[in-house]
Amino acid sequence: MVTGVRIAGVGMTPFGKQSERTSRELFAAAADEAFTDASVSRDAVEELFYGNFMGEFAETQGHQGPLMANAAGVVAPATRLESACASGSAAVRQGVQSIRSGDTDVVLVGGAERMTNISTAETTEALSAAADGLWEISAGVTFPGAYSLMANRYFHEFGGDREDLAHIAVKNHENAVENDLAQFQRAIDIEDVLEAPTVSSPFGLYDCSPISDGAAAAVLVSDDFAEEHGLDAPIEITGSGQGVDNMSLQGRKSMVKTPAARRAGEMAYEDAGLGPADIDVAEVHDCFTIAEALALEALGFYEPGEAISAARNGETTIDGDLPVNLSGGLKAKGHPVGATGCAQLTEMTKLLRGDHVNSDAVSDASVGLTHNAGGTVASCIVHVLEVVE
Amino acid sequence: MVTGVRIAGVGMTPFGKQSERTSRELFAAAADEAFTDASVSRDAVEELFYGNFMGEFAETQGHQGPLMANAAGVVAPATRLESACASGSAAVRQGVQSIRSGDTDVVLVGGAERMTNISTAETTEALSAAADGLWEISAGVTFPGAYSLMANRYFHEFGGDREDLAHIAVKNHENAVENDLAQFQRAIDIEDVLEAPTVSSPFGLYDCSPISDGAAAAVLVSDDFAEEHGLDAPIEITGSGQGVDNMSLQGRKSMVKTPAARRAGEMAYEDAGLGPADIDVAEVHDCFTIAEALALEALGFYEPGEAISAARNGETTIDGDLPVNLSGGLKAKGHPVGATGCAQLTEMTKLLRGDHVNSDAVSDASVGLTHNAGGTVASCIVHVLEVVE
Repeated sequence: MVTGVRIAGVGMTPFGKQSERTSRELFAAAADEAFTDASVSRDAVEELFYGNFMGEFAETQGHQGPLMANAAGVVAPATRLESACASGSAAVRQGVQSIRSGDTDVVLVGGAERMTNISTAETTEALSAAADGLWEISAGVTFPGAYSLMANRYFHEFGGDREDLAHIAVKNHENAVENDLAQFQRAIDIEDVLEAPTVSSPFGLYDCSPISDGAAAAVLVSDDFAEEHGLDAPIEITGSGQGVDNMSLQGRKSMVKTPAARRAGEMAYEDAGLGPADIDVAEVHDCFTIAEALALEALGFYEPGEAISAARNGETTIDGDLPVNLSGGLKAKGHPVGATGCAQLTEMTKLLRGDHVNSDAVSDASVGLTHNAGGTVASCIVHVLEVVE
Repeated sequence: MVTGVRIAGVGMTPFGKQSERTSRELFAAAADEAFTDASVSRDAVEELFYGNFMGEFAETQGHQGPLMANAAGVVAPATRLESACASGSAAVRQGVQSIRSGDTDVVLVGGAERMTNISTAETTEALSAAADGLWEISAGVTFPGAYSLMANRYFHEFGGDREDLAHIAVKNHENAVENDLAQFQRAIDIEDVLEAPTVSSPFGLYDCSPISDGAAAAVLVSDDFAEEHGLDAPIEITGSGQGVDNMSLQGRKSMVKTPAARRAGEMAYEDAGLGPADIDVAEVHDCFTIAEALALEALGFYEPGEAISAARNGETTIDGDLPVNLSGGLKAKGHPVGATGCAQLTEMTKLLRGDHVNSDAVSDASVGLTHNAGGTVASCIVHVLEVVE
């Protein structure tokens, strides 16, 4: 019998522009909060998994495992995972595997990204390292360009328009208004989105997640450890799944499907022994507005072509049947790349425990899902979280 | 009962200067050989763990998990691990944890590094990302400098001299003479080492491992899978350990001890249920000659101050009691950073199976150890391999 993996505590820095803080300072702050939240001592940690994407570009720094162990005050094996924008969830997933393997009972997971201390041009170049350097970047495609190709193809195949997408941005901004950790704590309206400067057609500025600094961390423990130490750890990671796809868009059968997310979802559902109908609330990777729609379709919540109008129809809003991105999502909460996956876990844990600013909207929720994608969903990691006590 | 992890097959490109080959080409070649050696289909692979250190610098390429899955012809969750020069072993270790967790039965692990397609100055800058960017690199220390500080301090505390170190280099070159995969397949003598141009005192050119391109891969399977499919997989990974230390030398209690390696060794020994006296043959991380001595002491083969003369005394030579680096080590086999850890596994597997050019020297060996370090041993990963059938 493989042990269950409990989330004993979570922590997260505010997301936003804070270019004076090094990534080690950011992660130390998030880890500190997670230890306090968990009532677990640093000394108990047996392994650290840390997600980061662009430390080489922003801080000329690799080998971040031992660096972050030191920053967090932990003396334990420490490994850095890099899976582009899914790096944070890669760290979470390895933490789950470590505990399930029986090697450990207490693992610190998390991630950080420092992005605003270099120029926007340099950050754009760094982000391009998440795409295929030989076959995409050399052709001049950046991520807003790649996702806008996907959006335009979606319109072509299924219909939908910029205003559908605008509702996704409006919803996520609305959810972030009272989230103190979010980069943009303000509402926007449809006109704001439609009239914003064009980034890459059909995307205006508000269709795109921002460049952010920040960190998130979580203390994961085995069932046995939680019980022995009388921890208040009501949330269990019951499902973990990961999928892969061709890196470059031209290598795929479809530009409007994300099979890496479908596989990750199916794997996570099977692991947890449930399906999409059982999910009460979700945090998905809305790096661009279209990405939220593609995620909801890949995860089995909607048929292909139908999720683009979900926000517009109120189905994924805070009072909808399936509230999505109650944290504000990447769009409004911010997207410090390596932190994002663990931040989804952090926000979902709080939502399910009842101590998130938006928890009241999902007071009956017992099952949450997180979906974290790398690149144009060449990699994807999904976790299912359940309230177990 | 946690499953055993068998090495079903291994593969490795030649190491050396082959700057025209992309990292994906290198890894594809190593993986292809591993699948053939394993008699396992690509379709059976359930997860890929890939180690790489400096792809951002050499190819402006991150997000290498899906890229390498595609290169290797694998459709499975794929994650890149980065732990500086220990990145390859980090991939191996996650593969072990994945199988032990029960999530998978077949995992592809490996790593690659492309280093010679950029200038030596650029490679030196890239390598510096394995040290503490804030507190070491900014002070002008590069890796030959850092390890030479350790060597000089070792001489000061314990005695020993450049000629002791020279015997380590001579031994490892001698071991590589008939290894077709090695970068330097030629013998050198003590005078060659002592008269070589100084890199950073006390190191001359032959005290330093070279800059190399290359890849290595291994197919790991569960006991059950090996049995069900009648695989010829006589080598089991019975021990896995990882340790951490402060990144920067000035943050440590001693400059001549590597506690990360000691912890990794103790963890691996405990995992395997044996001790240093049971090890018949070892591959250790000799990025500089002094590093081999420090490794042998940390792993419990020698008391502090005693390993520096081991090669000189013939104890670690091919006909010694504990042959070390029969592959040629990093020194002569080459050191494509992200490939090195898995290459140690590859060479050790062949040595123990009896199909390595130097196998005859260890025909009675049944237990091997690999030691792979990151930076100045701020991270270290040790594996114990045993012949089980």
